[in-house]
Amino acid sequence: MDLAKDGTIDGIVTAPINKEALAAAGMPHSGHTEILASLSGARDVAMLLMGDELRVIHVTMHVAIRQVPDLVTRDRVLRTIELAQRALEGLGIRGGRIAVAGLNPHAGEDGLFGDEEKAAIAPAIAEARTEGLNVTGPLPADTLFSRARGGEFDIVVAMYHDQGHIPVKTLGFNYDQATKRWLGLSGVNVTVGLPFLRVSVDHGTAFDRAWKGVANHESMVEALQVAVRMLSAR
Amino acid sequence: MDLAKDGTIDGIVTAPINKEALAAAGMPHSGHTEILASLSGARDVAMLLMGDELRVIHVTMHVAIRQVPDLVTRDRVLRTIELAQRALEGLGIRGGRIAVAGLNPHAGEDGLFGDEEKAAIAPAIAEARTEGLNVTGPLPADTLFSRARGGEFDIVVAMYHDQGHIPVKTLGFNYDQATKRWLGLSGVNVTVGLPFLRVSVDHGTAFDRAWKGVANHESMVEALQVAVRMLSAR
Repeated sequence: MDLAKDGTIDGIVTAPINKEALAAAGMPHSGHTEILASLSGARDVAMLLMGDELRVIHVTMHVAIRQVPDLVTRDRVLRTIELAQRALEGLGIRGGRIAVAGLNPHAGEDGLFGDEEKAAIAPAIAEARTEGLNVTGPLPADTLFSRARGGEFDIVVAMYHDQGHIPVKTLGFNYDQATKRWLGLSGVNVTVGLPFLRVSVDHGTAFDRAWKGVANHESMVEALQVAVRMLSAR
Repeated sequence: MDLAKDGTIDGIVTAPINKEALAAAGMPHSGHTEILASLSGARDVAMLLMGDELRVIHVTMHVAIRQVPDLVTRDRVLRTIELAQRALEGLGIRGGRIAVAGLNPHAGEDGLFGDEEKAAIAPAIAEARTEGLNVTGPLPADTLFSRARGGEFDIVVAMYHDQGHIPVKTLGFNYDQATKRWLGLSGVNVTVGLPFLRVSVDHGTAFDRAWKGVANHESMVEALQVAVRMLSAR
């Protein structure tokens, strides 16, 4: 962190951390991202998950589903849309097309199943458009990711962890039942909003694989490659 | 409904219904499934969504995310696991392997992000095992569907609509940006727990496509084929 803050290094690539162990050690943060945000004094950060076919940035992350609806505020959605734009620019994409998912099934079906789309998400999108951003939504989350895969959008703003992680990991991971191994582990995290680049693998600690020679290092290689690519694009 | 109840027909295949129109017409039900459950006097029904690579049954369906945590009870999860078993038997699969998703990110990470896994989901799984069912979970939803795709499980029990619909539709749908058409529309719904077979397409009414000659009928063909296959397996 000190090296990144004083400019000696341009970015940090992190390995997985065990969140239970972190909590047991008395750390108040729920993960690397929260630690880095706090120590760097960043105001807004968001997690960008990138797979081969999808880029997804998250309005909320490591919180219980029960807490998500109250965290989906107009202000927070707007800031995440702005971070999505910043992430695309960091990747060298100008005028990127941003899609915003609804929180509820069928994006609330016009208020039938929840009002967060009307109360928070749609107003945030309207505000982002007045800032000149190319934003569409709120769209039903179940079909949105197919549309993004098909080339309609450059990035998706998801409302919660699993909404964004399920499509990226379902497409990118491949668990081979015969060998009990994960193949084609794709997906890296980029923390958007920090004063330096931070890329991370997107898998857990897998303590059960330690010292057995069966861990898959592909995601770490990919995280390093993404870091290099993003720094080169600057 | 009357023909199905008196045994003249064995099953019903339904086209999409517009839930807003249904509500505007003063119907108290949120969809076909709820109407059929109510009229047939079924005690427990659940929606099974089947794609080419995944089968998913849902504990809750057309409700706001805000309401989901209170609906994820031990009893409701247990009944859905039992309906999953019944669905697999209806498909001719004996001793099927059932995976149950967690509600929260990382399946709650041992209670750090929500307690529904410990309070409701794990006890339901324990009870289902005492009934002799082959059940695993609660598992983190983001990697679970890759494991199911890889052959580890025959069916997944999802806690809410988008948790189950995102992976099936992200894999099965293919939106072609160049032609603005959905290709490979795969995914049909089976209502489990009714006294007769009910299969449905898994897409909306798409009123914007009416009379333009651009609607895709593949999902309806597939729904009819699934109905025939399931009746033949009986």
